[in-house]
Amino acid sequence: MAFTSALKLLKSSVSAIYHRLYVRAFLAEFISTFAILAFVNGLIAQAVLTDGEKGSGVAPKWGAFVAAMSGILIACGASGAHSNPAFSLLFALRGILPWAKLPVYWIAQYLGAFCGAAAVLGVYWDAIMFKGNGEFYITNEDPGLAAIFATYPMPYVSIAGCIIDQLFGSALLALCVAALTDPKNMRIPLPLVALYIGFLVLELAIGFSLNTGGSPNPARDLSPRILTYFAGWGIQVFRDWTWFWIPVVIPHIGVVIGYLIYFILIEAHWPTQ
Amino acid sequence: MAFTSALKLLKSSVSAIYHRLYVRAFLAEFISTFAILAFVNGLIAQAVLTDGEKGSGVAPKWGAFVAAMSGILIACGASGAHSNPAFSLLFALRGILPWAKLPVYWIAQYLGAFCGAAAVLGVYWDAIMFKGNGEFYITNEDPGLAAIFATYPMPYVSIAGCIIDQLFGSALLALCVAALTDPKNMRIPLPLVALYIGFLVLELAIGFSLNTGGSPNPARDLSPRILTYFAGWGIQVFRDWTWFWIPVVIPHIGVVIGYLIYFILIEAHWPTQ
Amino acid sequence: MAFTSALKLLKSSVSAIYHRLYVRAFLAEFISTFAILAFVNGLIAQAVLTDGEKGSGVAPKWGAFVAAMSGILIACGASGAHSNPAFSLLFALRGILPWAKLPVYWIAQYLGAFCGAAAVLGVYWDAIMFKGNGEFYITNEDPGLAAIFATYPMPYVSIAGCIIDQLFGSALLALCVAALTDPKNMRIPLPLVALYIGFLVLELAIGFSLNTGGSPNPARDLSPRILTYFAGWGIQVFRDWTWFWIPVVIPHIGVVIGYLIYFILIEAHWPTQ
Amino acid sequence: MAFTSALKLLKSSVSAIYHRLYVRAFLAEFISTFAILAFVNGLIAQAVLTDGEKGSGVAPKWGAFVAAMSGILIACGASGAHSNPAFSLLFALRGILPWAKLPVYWIAQYLGAFCGAAAVLGVYWDAIMFKGNGEFYITNEDPGLAAIFATYPMPYVSIAGCIIDQLFGSALLALCVAALTDPKNMRIPLPLVALYIGFLVLELAIGFSLNTGGSPNPARDLSPRILTYFAGWGIQVFRDWTWFWIPVVIPHIGVVIGYLIYFILIEAHWPTQ
Repeated sequence: MAFTSALKLLKSSVSAIYHRLYVRAFLAEFISTFAILAFVNGLIAQAVLTDGEKGSGVAPKWGAFVAAMSGILIACGASGAHSNPAFSLLFALRGILPWAKLPVYWIAQYLGAFCGAAAVLGVYWDAIMFKGNGEFYITNEDPGLAAIFATYPMPYVSIAGCIIDQLFGSALLALCVAALTDPKNMRIPLPLVALYIGFLVLELAIGFSLNTGGSPNPARDLSPRILTYFAGWGIQVFRDWTWFWIPVVIPHIGVVIGYLIYFILIEAHWPTQ
Repeated sequence: MAFTSALKLLKSSVSAIYHRLYVRAFLAEFISTFAILAFVNGLIAQAVLTDGEKGSGVAPKWGAFVAAMSGILIACGASGAHSNPAFSLLFALRGILPWAKLPVYWIAQYLGAFCGAAAVLGVYWDAIMFKGNGEFYITNEDPGLAAIFATYPMPYVSIAGCIIDQLFGSALLALCVAALTDPKNMRIPLPLVALYIGFLVLELAIGFSLNTGGSPNPARDLSPRILTYFAGWGIQVFRDWTWFWIPVVIPHIGVVIGYLIYFILIEAHWPTQ
Repeated sequence: MAFTSALKLLKSSVSAIYHRLYVRAFLAEFISTFAILAFVNGLIAQAVLTDGEKGSGVAPKWGAFVAAMSGILIACGASGAHSNPAFSLLFALRGILPWAKLPVYWIAQYLGAFCGAAAVLGVYWDAIMFKGNGEFYITNEDPGLAAIFATYPMPYVSIAGCIIDQLFGSALLALCVAALTDPKNMRIPLPLVALYIGFLVLELAIGFSLNTGGSPNPARDLSPRILTYFAGWGIQVFRDWTWFWIPVVIPHIGVVIGYLIYFILIEAHWPTQ
Repeated sequence: MAFTSALKLLKSSVSAIYHRLYVRAFLAEFISTFAILAFVNGLIAQAVLTDGEKGSGVAPKWGAFVAAMSGILIACGASGAHSNPAFSLLFALRGILPWAKLPVYWIAQYLGAFCGAAAVLGVYWDAIMFKGNGEFYITNEDPGLAAIFATYPMPYVSIAGCIIDQLFGSALLALCVAALTDPKNMRIPLPLVALYIGFLVLELAIGFSLNTGGSPNPARDLSPRILTYFAGWGIQVFRDWTWFWIPVVIPHIGVVIGYLIYFILIEAHWPTQ
């Protein structure tokens, strides 16, 4: 078959460049974060672009569930499927990820997220033009259709409230992920770990997405925001620089705190045998 | 027992015709696609025929999830449960399905889809007559109750938008399915693969069904459309021939692209040993 | 501990009566069907008694999913957890259940269903009295609060339509259950079978519950109907005897047809080795 | 790495205090119940603080599902993850939990629940102030925003109705949990037990949360109620002392009854060898 021969040729070509430059981990993190953003932005697009379902309904929560799960399923065997710069930092701190690989992971994640969001912009371009009458409306009070891509906090939430919200959400997620992947706790088989992490993301969407949109993933928020800046919504997407840095910086602190809580309360107590 | 003797007799009769003509794969693909269409058209029928739930709500998304899952559970052991002409083409290209079997799979899939849709037409005949006042209403703007069976794009989506939408959806699905079934990635046991593929179909329904209805399965769309032509909606179901060919042709290209992306970014990088 | 000694004493007492009269299977089928009805009638009660959610929403569908799953989890090890007279008949026909046990299963199922429905009537008595102003309203057009317990078809569905609906739903369920439990197909481990059967029941609720309420389980329908007769709704619950016998009789035929289709199309084709 | 050395130092410090005082079980139960309450109160907060979704929708039910699941995943390996004082009593009665550990479990559970609810109060402080105009409104008829934390029965439910509701819900849960964890029934692997218990909690939320809010967990109800007393809603949260004791006392009786029913009907009948 011509197709299978082409596949073999491809395999030998890419193998040659594998051993250097962490190409494999880069590509895996890239496509994993690409898929997550394609799914997450796609489902918010479908919710926002459908009148009467904006912000309500359980469907977008389930979309976030599958998005997180799919990211893991795609890249877990190749790069560990962090798909989240904050978790990559945590794994580097814990000695699981070599520090030299951290920038590779980060670049792949932010780039993958940007491309995933851009793909959704392309797929829903007709609908966004139709719904927004061809204009890229955004004010400091109402993000308009830019809310399809990045998150924007509710107007009544203070800066301190935003920081607490992001800190709490990312810490809770990291605590539960630490439990799920702890080989001495429930011993959950890897194929089920993806399912359970999906459920955790579902829970955050159901219980802790009201204040700020609830993204405990810096790449999921910053990359689509930069995309909307270029796509036409302009400098307003950064909102006087008060909000946009919070979901980028805070999750890095939150996941470390969350893991430390799990470590102190559970992991450190396992019998050493 | 008379019943168990009858079963044994049946078994010996069908075994006799098994070895020729790929009867087994044909029957398995037929019943698998039949069940998928019975479920998918059944749930859209229930949503469309219930006032106030038309197009909204998360229930139909979950129905698509179980439909995809059931199709796999029914036929996986017998035919691989492609249940989708585009995936059968991909597996033929990859050398997994013999080319000689491809037409057998295709005929079984289109025929199964036709019969599954026809069964739903039968089950909901009273309701369709009641709701439509006995008329088969359809215009180029509004598919009416014909939307129970085939998909129709939103009026604001251009032809190019439709093609991009179908291409993106089917490529994303194929990419994730390739990851799920890759024996060197997460090593997901077969009984869970059905669950995860169901979740992927759920995600497409939540995030990428707004533009065109989001069917990445040619048999799921063409066969019910032909049924509605004969059932009484007439030639309008083909809408000036601009849309109907897209969900038939494009997924074949999309799934190949999606698999190639997975192959280049992940599969080709596995250590060979 | 007094409690643990009491448990031991209990165990030795019940063991003594175990070996005769199929007590064990009877009790297991009883409590399994009890739990299914408690869950199913409980969730419909909650939906019907909450204004604005009657009949709409996806929550009751998920309730049916857990109900089916729980019935299996409770009794599978002890009686096979048929929890459905039609399936018990099928298993007797197939030679899996001894014919002598069939009446034991049937009595346990109808009795368990009656008690489960009665428990829901007790738990929601205050709410039913409050909502119905202390009256047991029912007419041939509108079942009122009696719809919490038994099913009633939509007014536009003909007798033939009801029969087709019940036949199709139960056949489709039996076909999929046969695939799930076929040891030569996907080899699904028993703990996951409960999950998948739950999903099938979810699908029937989403796609095939519009016409008649979609119960493919005679005990789930007849026992609560008899309960409502005694509870105060009276002879109207049988609606001129045109409908009530259909969900009692037809599923017995439907599940046999569904299994035969699976047998002819898939099971009979397995290599005999 | 400084971080990994710090982790090792931490581990040796906490190991030193492990062997006495049941510290490990205390910490595990604390953080498990903390997470459950953070999730459960968080999701009700999100539902209540969003106009038009109060009490309706399926999202909060799914949140309860993940909450129960997460509690088990966090602490199962360390303390068994009872996360519920009533179940701890049952396990003490059954001889599985040493009586000396019972007060340790209870204190950890009530304290964890208090802190989890307090965390939600902190995270949603801005939103609660905004929504309630800075006032802590509550009357005997309408719990206002205090309903985010503790449960309040519907006005038409009598005291007897409340007791029956709590008794039935907790007994049904205990019956199903007993089946799930019975090593002689379905032999469900531990990682799936968390999933199935989550589904049971989902079912209770869908079918038996209308009358009283449906919490079969004393710590889930009492601790947040005490928090709301101190937070500003005052003595009204105890409502003339008629309701608040029911979800604290009754589940202890309900789970014992539920387990006894399972024991008598199923567990006692297993062949002894």
